[in-house]
Amino acid sequence: MIQPSQFKYSTRLAVRSYEVDWQGIVHNAIYLQYFEHGRLEYLRHIGVVVDTGAAIQDARVVIARNELNYYSPARFGDELEVFSRVALFGRTSFTFEGFISEIGSGRAIADNICVHVWVNPASGKPIEVPEAFRGLVGAFEGDRTQ
Amino acid sequence: MIQPSQFKYSTRLAVRSYEVDWQGIVHNAIYLQYFEHGRLEYLRHIGVVVDTGAAIQDARVVIARNELNYYSPARFGDELEVFSRVALFGRTSFTFEGFISEIGSGRAIADNICVHVWVNPASGKPIEVPEAFRGLVGAFEGDRTQ
Amino acid sequence: MIQPSQFKYSTRLAVRSYEVDWQGIVHNAIYLQYFEHGRLEYLRHIGVVVDTGAAIQDARVVIARNELNYYSPARFGDELEVFSRVALFGRTSFTFEGFISEIGSGRAIADNICVHVWVNPASGKPIEVPEAFRGLVGAFEGDRTQ
Amino acid sequence: MIQPSQFKYSTRLAVRSYEVDWQGIVHNAIYLQYFEHGRLEYLRHIGVVVDTGAAIQDARVVIARNELNYYSPARFGDELEVFSRVALFGRTSFTFEGFISEIGSGRAIADNICVHVWVNPASGKPIEVPEAFRGLVGAFEGDRTQ
Repeated sequence: MIQPSQFKYSTRLAVRSYEVDWQGIVHNAIYLQYFEHGRLEYLRHIGVVVDTGAAIQDARVVIARNELNYYSPARFGDELEVFSRVALFGRTSFTFEGFISEIGSGRAIADNICVHVWVNPASGKPIEVPEAFRGLVGAFEGDRTQ
Repeated sequence: MIQPSQFKYSTRLAVRSYEVDWQGIVHNAIYLQYFEHGRLEYLRHIGVVVDTGAAIQDARVVIARNELNYYSPARFGDELEVFSRVALFGRTSFTFEGFISEIGSGRAIADNICVHVWVNPASGKPIEVPEAFRGLVGAFEGDRTQ
Repeated sequence: MIQPSQFKYSTRLAVRSYEVDWQGIVHNAIYLQYFEHGRLEYLRHIGVVVDTGAAIQDARVVIARNELNYYSPARFGDELEVFSRVALFGRTSFTFEGFISEIGSGRAIADNICVHVWVNPASGKPIEVPEAFRGLVGAFEGDRTQ
Repeated sequence: MIQPSQFKYSTRLAVRSYEVDWQGIVHNAIYLQYFEHGRLEYLRHIGVVVDTGAAIQDARVVIARNELNYYSPARFGDELEVFSRVALFGRTSFTFEGFISEIGSGRAIADNICVHVWVNPASGKPIEVPEAFRGLVGAFEGDRTQ
């Protein structure tokens, strides 16, 4: 199980009413939104610019794999801490880890492993992770990222 | 046009990446989520308890009508202020007004009129708005609500 | 109230589990998705090409106003008919009307008026509705559109 | 990689406009909705009744884990086939597998492993998978489910 102590960065959010499904708990797909929010806040924090205004770009980062473990359901109004970090680099890929717990109680809610691949948007082929991106992650994480 | 000066309450949020559509702007349906978030924060602020944990309840509030005007598109990362108030009471209904502007610039983003009806969940028939609810709104809004 | 007899086109869908909220009914914002689905199927039906692959385009159609009336809640598994038509043209705008009823019973679920404006994506200024679009609508609707 | 030949059941859907993100492709969280849709259609097909009208029930099935592999992005209008099956039973859990491909081309889009746990809604503790559910799956899948 991913541990909060592995992370240097977290952001906070509160469960909104429309994220709750007919079971009265946060819908299982919504956690992918929470982890994405965590990743983008992390990227902004370490200085990576993400431009969502243009679908046509020189490079595109796509998601190749998501793993989610659900430990305890979150409910409307719960205040959550979303931990994020780049945990691993490959040649053309990098992997984010995420963890969500309830603020106050520390109750574990969910964790996530999310593998990203850098691709050429024209060909769809993987390309090398840019050095600038590796550098910004390395500057923040130090030797914590493999 | 609804004016921010008409409101005593507002809450804040930032546009998240997954709320942006293929045009690079916040999807038009997402604003209904933003205004709902504003309403629930308003209700909590004035002391109304909303229980989303149970679909079976003594009374249910349903939405009968929504009006939305879109003034300027919001984009990823934009920081928004969501103004909310109960503006009008009928015998079995009440109407929320909402307004969203960009924090800092004050740029008008959208407004909303949302008519709610109190119903008996078994019969689906309208029932009178409870005095307790009228009282909490009145205590907060004073004579601003019709 | 908008009547199904006003429409020449409709499409069908069934309510999905994740569209149902904590009250056990389709969330009020989801109907904007249903009506959008109806509009895009209508446009495809009359020969209008919508390209969602590129956020950067010569012209952009934005939504200026939505009105929604909710008549009866839809629930998981309900089979719905979504009626759509372009009902009105302005110089730089056009208005879609929509109506949703339950298949079989004919139960009225919701209706929608949705005002679109054609804009220059660079300046954000309204531009004239292209003749090609007016022509395709006119060819389908005949003199039903004002 | 999960293979379509492993499945006896599939359902079909077309990508809708509002499921497309700012990259012009289906958002990564939307596939969890597609797979859920596939599972509920599968359950209905084999005779399992799912009641989304009541959050308070005798038993509740929660999701403990999701794995998603993304092979090729789906775009607006793509017609997809969603394959679903119960692949594995534990004492208190069962596992769905899913696979999505493009109709016509057979292009692999994504696959999913989704672990469900049967719980007592009051205590949150796992309870044994009901025999009635095992029986309905067994009657459909024969000895294909472990």
